[in-house]
Amino acid sequence: MPGHQNTNDLVSAVFSDRHIGVTAQPHIHHMLSTLEFGSLEELSEAALPESIYTAEPMKLQAAVSEEAMLAELRALAGKNTVNKSFIGQGYYGTHTPGVIQRNVLESPAWYTAYTPYQPEISQGRLEALLNFQTVVSDLSGMLTANASMLDEGTAAAEAVALMRRTNRTAPDSAVLLVDADVFPQTLAVVTTRAKAMGLPLLVHDFDGELPDVEFFGVLLQYPGDSGRVREIAPIIAAAKERKAVVAVAADLLALTLLESPGALGADLAVGTSQRFGVPMGFGGPHAGYMAVRKGLERSLPGRLVGVSKDAAGNQAYRLALQTREQHIRREKATSNICTAQVLLAVMAGMYAVYHGPEGLRKIATRVHVRAQSVAAAATAAGHTIIHANFFDTVKIKVTLQSGHAAAELVAAAHRAGYLLRQVDHDHLQIAVDETTTEADVAALAALFGAEAPESANGAAAVVLPTPVRATDYMTNPVFHAHNSETQMLRYLRKLSDADYALDRGMIPLGSCTMKLNATAEMAAVTWPEFSNLHPFAPASDTVGMVEMATQLESWLAEITGYDAVSVQPNAGSQGEFAGLMAIRAFHVENGNPDRDIVLIPTSAHGTNAASAVMAGLKVVAVATDGFGNIDIDDLKRQIATHENRLAAIMVTYPSTHGVFETEISTICAMIHDAGGQVYVDGANLNALVGLAQPGKFGADVSHLNLHKTFCIPHGGGGPGVGPVAVGAHLAKHLPARELGIDSSVGLVSSAPYGSASILPISWAYIRMMGPDGLRLATQTAILSANYIARRLRDHYPVLYTGAHDLVAHECILDLRGITADSGVTVDDVAKRLIDYGFHAPTMSFPVAGTLMVEPTESEDLGEIDRFINAMISIRKEIAAVQDGLWPAEDNPLVNAPHTAQSITQEWEHPYSREDAVFPAGVDPRAKYWPIVRRIDQAYGDRNLVCSCPSIEELAEAF
Amino acid sequence: MPGHQNTNDLVSAVFSDRHIGVTAQPHIHHMLSTLEFGSLEELSEAALPESIYTAEPMKLQAAVSEEAMLAELRALAGKNTVNKSFIGQGYYGTHTPGVIQRNVLESPAWYTAYTPYQPEISQGRLEALLNFQTVVSDLSGMLTANASMLDEGTAAAEAVALMRRTNRTAPDSAVLLVDADVFPQTLAVVTTRAKAMGLPLLVHDFDGELPDVEFFGVLLQYPGDSGRVREIAPIIAAAKERKAVVAVAADLLALTLLESPGALGADLAVGTSQRFGVPMGFGGPHAGYMAVRKGLERSLPGRLVGVSKDAAGNQAYRLALQTREQHIRREKATSNICTAQVLLAVMAGMYAVYHGPEGLRKIATRVHVRAQSVAAAATAAGHTIIHANFFDTVKIKVTLQSGHAAAELVAAAHRAGYLLRQVDHDHLQIAVDETTTEADVAALAALFGAEAPESANGAAAVVLPTPVRATDYMTNPVFHAHNSETQMLRYLRKLSDADYALDRGMIPLGSCTMKLNATAEMAAVTWPEFSNLHPFAPASDTVGMVEMATQLESWLAEITGYDAVSVQPNAGSQGEFAGLMAIRAFHVENGNPDRDIVLIPTSAHGTNAASAVMAGLKVVAVATDGFGNIDIDDLKRQIATHENRLAAIMVTYPSTHGVFETEISTICAMIHDAGGQVYVDGANLNALVGLAQPGKFGADVSHLNLHKTFCIPHGGGGPGVGPVAVGAHLAKHLPARELGIDSSVGLVSSAPYGSASILPISWAYIRMMGPDGLRLATQTAILSANYIARRLRDHYPVLYTGAHDLVAHECILDLRGITADSGVTVDDVAKRLIDYGFHAPTMSFPVAGTLMVEPTESEDLGEIDRFINAMISIRKEIAAVQDGLWPAEDNPLVNAPHTAQSITQEWEHPYSREDAVFPAGVDPRAKYWPIVRRIDQAYGDRNLVCSCPSIEELAEAF
Repeated sequence: MPGHQNTNDLVSAVFSDRHIGVTAQPHIHHMLSTLEFGSLEELSEAALPESIYTAEPMKLQAAVSEEAMLAELRALAGKNTVNKSFIGQGYYGTHTPGVIQRNVLESPAWYTAYTPYQPEISQGRLEALLNFQTVVSDLSGMLTANASMLDEGTAAAEAVALMRRTNRTAPDSAVLLVDADVFPQTLAVVTTRAKAMGLPLLVHDFDGELPDVEFFGVLLQYPGDSGRVREIAPIIAAAKERKAVVAVAADLLALTLLESPGALGADLAVGTSQRFGVPMGFGGPHAGYMAVRKGLERSLPGRLVGVSKDAAGNQAYRLALQTREQHIRREKATSNICTAQVLLAVMAGMYAVYHGPEGLRKIATRVHVRAQSVAAAATAAGHTIIHANFFDTVKIKVTLQSGHAAAELVAAAHRAGYLLRQVDHDHLQIAVDETTTEADVAALAALFGAEAPESANGAAAVVLPTPVRATDYMTNPVFHAHNSETQMLRYLRKLSDADYALDRGMIPLGSCTMKLNATAEMAAVTWPEFSNLHPFAPASDTVGMVEMATQLESWLAEITGYDAVSVQPNAGSQGEFAGLMAIRAFHVENGNPDRDIVLIPTSAHGTNAASAVMAGLKVVAVATDGFGNIDIDDLKRQIATHENRLAAIMVTYPSTHGVFETEISTICAMIHDAGGQVYVDGANLNALVGLAQPGKFGADVSHLNLHKTFCIPHGGGGPGVGPVAVGAHLAKHLPARELGIDSSVGLVSSAPYGSASILPISWAYIRMMGPDGLRLATQTAILSANYIARRLRDHYPVLYTGAHDLVAHECILDLRGITADSGVTVDDVAKRLIDYGFHAPTMSFPVAGTLMVEPTESEDLGEIDRFINAMISIRKEIAAVQDGLWPAEDNPLVNAPHTAQSITQEWEHPYSREDAVFPAGVDPRAKYWPIVRRIDQAYGDRNLVCSCPSIEELAEAF
Repeated sequence: MPGHQNTNDLVSAVFSDRHIGVTAQPHIHHMLSTLEFGSLEELSEAALPESIYTAEPMKLQAAVSEEAMLAELRALAGKNTVNKSFIGQGYYGTHTPGVIQRNVLESPAWYTAYTPYQPEISQGRLEALLNFQTVVSDLSGMLTANASMLDEGTAAAEAVALMRRTNRTAPDSAVLLVDADVFPQTLAVVTTRAKAMGLPLLVHDFDGELPDVEFFGVLLQYPGDSGRVREIAPIIAAAKERKAVVAVAADLLALTLLESPGALGADLAVGTSQRFGVPMGFGGPHAGYMAVRKGLERSLPGRLVGVSKDAAGNQAYRLALQTREQHIRREKATSNICTAQVLLAVMAGMYAVYHGPEGLRKIATRVHVRAQSVAAAATAAGHTIIHANFFDTVKIKVTLQSGHAAAELVAAAHRAGYLLRQVDHDHLQIAVDETTTEADVAALAALFGAEAPESANGAAAVVLPTPVRATDYMTNPVFHAHNSETQMLRYLRKLSDADYALDRGMIPLGSCTMKLNATAEMAAVTWPEFSNLHPFAPASDTVGMVEMATQLESWLAEITGYDAVSVQPNAGSQGEFAGLMAIRAFHVENGNPDRDIVLIPTSAHGTNAASAVMAGLKVVAVATDGFGNIDIDDLKRQIATHENRLAAIMVTYPSTHGVFETEISTICAMIHDAGGQVYVDGANLNALVGLAQPGKFGADVSHLNLHKTFCIPHGGGGPGVGPVAVGAHLAKHLPARELGIDSSVGLVSSAPYGSASILPISWAYIRMMGPDGLRLATQTAILSANYIARRLRDHYPVLYTGAHDLVAHECILDLRGITADSGVTVDDVAKRLIDYGFHAPTMSFPVAGTLMVEPTESEDLGEIDRFINAMISIRKEIAAVQDGLWPAEDNPLVNAPHTAQSITQEWEHPYSREDAVFPAGVDPRAKYWPIVRRIDQAYGDRNLVCSCPSIEELAEAF
């Protein structure tokens, strides 16, 4: 009726309609019809086992609009107080250059990218990471740096493990010597991890002689926690005399003025690159680093970018030495780290590129001079400087005659808007950073009751701390060619243009859940009220941040059906470790310290096994049956065999095969009956939210991946957040929330809330979706995966399905038969998909020779059909090879991907240039162009180059 | 000496080192040596006439760092109070979708682009503008809409001019009838412009009969300023009966519910698209619109995007009917508008694409229902609703018995955080918008003393205002295919990937000054304290905004040497108009109303002449001599000829030939002696800042282009800001600062400070550069232009040089001889530069057959050399044509640009595919790919299609 309109139209566009790609009723209907289901409810009920399926709404607040969510989040942000921090202790104020903030941290081209496992579509971020590695290896004086570690504490813990396993002469009983002047949070994390690995640890004051015990490694801090810059060369020499391996936790900015650990004889260096332009963020995320001397590079944990060449013989980057990684080595892995901090490493590397070596040296010098001014003011006021040789941190003994105990000075500073660090009754520390101004120094002087120091800018000369740096760094041209904002802007654009991320098209990576990272979710990441908080700021300053994180923990508990959650673990691997440590602690608590065996199905993520080893557990594999499910008979056997040593089972649900195993409840019961605990890996939670709860269907602990189900962007391979969720009986074994708190497990990350500054992303997602939106997202993810499976199954066998022939939220396409027939491999298909404008699905996981496809709920029908059509078209190309139309060694599949350059050259292939780069369905006006051809992995591993190659190296290699 | 370092190193990286591209001493030295100068000072002194050159530092504060500038700007922002506006009156609260804010407004790929005069590298923004045109023409019910107007007031003024010139029957004495219910600021701007053109204007209440005078046009407001929605169809019919042209100023959101002006018989529609996702910004910028019925499309002012085809026969977009534009038609132009509001039109168009027609209708319905709730609450409280048929704005007569005069209610609302509009003693208005919540309505009800209305969301049906819309809109698929955030993100990425902007490489456009738009400068644009202010908010709410704008005005006065500046003109053309109006008013004031002739050199910007005509002046051309300078003899003659009618001379300095004319002081004196005023067009101010001041060397008035010299990004063709700067004697003739203020000129833009929300960009630039940085920028711009001229002059003649054979900040490369010899045109070279990865220089301005190159200070030596090498390489290609190596009709120049698609196809050209797309110096890994080949301009003008083509139209055309 004209003039009247139903008030349903009053409801504003709801966020779930923006997040979910398939919302038009005709599209939903078409997809359901293809599957022969009448509704999403029917499909969900059919897909999930009845024993776990729930229709009960989650007890979450109803969804609010983007604007309302942002208003709520702003109110939380408003409860924080950003005082200027002089706390230091590994976290410093820093200026993020605007051009980097806007064009990396706030650019979907960077933050929606995946880990560069497909190097041909990742040359931009790989180059950025190579820059990062070069900065780290140059500054630390080491040969090879990785990209990257999770934070300084976990980097130090990984260094301990590396020292232990590369020291082949020290006996098993040898201890680790830890510098008494190490950051307390580093000591806490190292203690947690050493305890898990059974390594004894001795805190030592290196002012004295080396102790009279056997030790396998030494961990020094440089400059020390107290700000002191010690002469570490003699200590290193003495330790090496005793055949120990020596690691130095070093501050990268200090290393622009101080001689490098490498030059002073150390074997490896660790630390953080936070102060290279990455906000403190209440503790993270930021990129930790590790660098090693020549000879140790093949023992480095984590991701390592290296130089290789492509099929045309041109230089190309890719991840090097991947066989070291936990997903390959499984229970033989020496580290469980998987997610890195790529986005933050890119930022730190670009900060160094933008400032160049001279710029960094200027910043460091200014920091040092201001610290000297602080020391002078303190001295003038009658206080005592404890260590004369410092870089940025001044330790002050407060003269009690001054009328001020340290606590009073700290309190007065707080009132004035400054955070100082109180050490004890009469000592405090002040750490200067890039953001410290002369006005700040004057204000501190006034607090001491001293005159403001004269402007240091006018002083004649600066006395630098010793040992003064004599070795060069960052001499590669890349650090001298992007110093204007225009140059930096274009460099960032050029690199991101080489890459494929979610802003170009679908990334159908099974088990990785590459879904929308909505702008509204990302907004708060750069709000200063969250990003400029020091993790050890007084609780009164961080009320809103803690409230937000605590709310998020409670919402995650409600979603998963658990009783308690900790967001501290700053990656899935850390969450796994924390969860397994909780199980270990539980058994110890109950008088079962011998329960140390964890059963893991052969189809599990490699990280599961690696984490179990890190947690001091022993891994026993359980077979899977022909349908991809756990072999119940084998499980029974294993339970019987290991009886009283059974600690836990680790399963992924839905399984890594993308199937809802119907026996999950039975499995949980069997384990519990045998006295074990059930660990459900939450990697596939995107198939469960709103439909089933691990905490209710029998599991005791899970870790979640906020960068999968809860929309934290992958950032090209991190940051991630891996909360651990547990039942009530394990709640006391969650990671400690504060330094120095008595806790069974201790700290697993350096900061109490881990990567706190990105938690608002997941908070925002849950708040805007509400219980109904979250459930609908899950149902849509299941719908889309099944639609793909159904439409492709006549072209590629779908390896596993569950009840009603349905998959969960992903499906495995089995190419093994096709490969056997045609010689065309999953690799060829994956690279050929690049020519079609897609990121490849997950390759050869969990089953070699297969592709695992996960569309997520965010893809629309048009994009899903585009993918299906590309896969069908590729199948026809394979058929042409099978039919002998194209030779096995020269066809568009084995030659993929094709660059624009390749089609300008002589063309003698049996297919046309057009077929090469514009195959069926590719719009020439929206073509993604890879800039390299297929990359030779083995060449790069044989000729390992992991920093920016010099002109000479380039000339020699190509 | 190790351990010591000079404290010069303490100085932080200064912003000018980031802004200026050539800062490395070896680079400066190399460029100076090429020119045989020893220092930048020597070069500047040689380039500028001694009579105007100054070494005296500008009285501006010393530069501060990016962080310090941002802190100062935040303090200013903190002085504003953002109360929620219900003022309406053409400015409404709106939610900018996050995905559009981040990926358009905050994306350098969009905001650093130039006007799409080179359509082959502008397909993305042209498509976005075509969407905008389609939204406007669909909603207004017109055939053709342009893209775009500066604001609603100037759009209405342009409509008046269009009505006058297309009405061929009305006598010269006929008047314009203006709706008494038009927005007051629209009336003010229309009055200013009509007065200048000598058009009589009659404000009329259309409730009565049409007046008994002859009128050429009618301007209606729909809905009216009072909120009333009138039945305009009978008025239109009656006016057309009297042979008048009828324009309707219409609200686009209202048109989703109300029948369109076109369907109701109007000839044209104007208005603003601000409430389609563009923040109010204290008045701008946002995109005004104009749309016309069939038959008037060739009379439309401003930019018009149309569909055509490229050399391969594929669909392609480009600016249509360019011969209508002022730069072609000069004094015969019917409008002076040049800069449009492209960036904001893109945002508004994308807002419509994202919401789709259903989404817009929902928003409008919600707005209407909430307005009804406000009316119901007011009625319940005993007040009277004046107009029953409204869309979003409720006019209320306050019942004095209620104990509240209107002023008291407005004051109480202000205290509660709401801005209402007081009309008079007992009337107020409340305008509801997209951001109005139920809670807001309840708060307003409480202010009235009424109960909160029941939730309208639960109501059964909505009564819509009449005439209810019965015609369709936005039926094109583009409005139904990008409704999820993922789809929108990819659409924006795809479009921006088609385009070339400053984030890819140099845009060496003479006279356009495409320099860095630094991120720190852009930051404040999206701060809510600036962007969410209503232009008519109470002065107490806008203290910081006005202080910032006033500071900027004073700084611009100091830089230019004038006494007063107004930032109100929201484009250069408006600044010209305001400056010429000031001159006219000055002569009138001094008893010389007959001084109406303005002398303009033949080399001037076309806009100069067009603006003079708009200001009611007569244009007389002055010849230029063989060196490109004003012909002094001809000038003498013209002065003598026009004697007492001489109003002014308009010159550009340095000249549009890119030369510092040595006689400028003489010219100024000659004009003054003859009783005229000197207008210096500030387009080329980038060659003067810090070295010479127009206000000191003899000029009386200038307009500046903040989007040239002062870093406001070009945004793909706007927004611009065109402040007018005058000597003390003209200060009183600057545009009025407020509505209703007695003023000789009146308002030139709808809002008091024009496009206020982008003024922080220029404020930030000046604050961070300081007097020294600004001067160094100018010197570097001159250095770089001269370096290019010197290095290219053996390859292409440099048309004009001044003293010491130097150019100013740009140089003209003369291709006329080369074209005569080879047949290769400037067009061919411009298009060939695309293949080399460059935006073309300015083509055929100011001299046909030439290219004008302006590198600006922001380009680094590497990029400048890359350009020089490309030009030299192209010269060799031309030689190959001259030498007969390649035929004139088939060579890489005439065939340029080459798409990737073109090289996949059969290749029978005499040059290779590689030569086509990767000519000398092009890095295949950083290649910019145009998506269309050369576009057929004439085809599109013959077959005019200016909205998104339907499937059928596409099928027919291609």
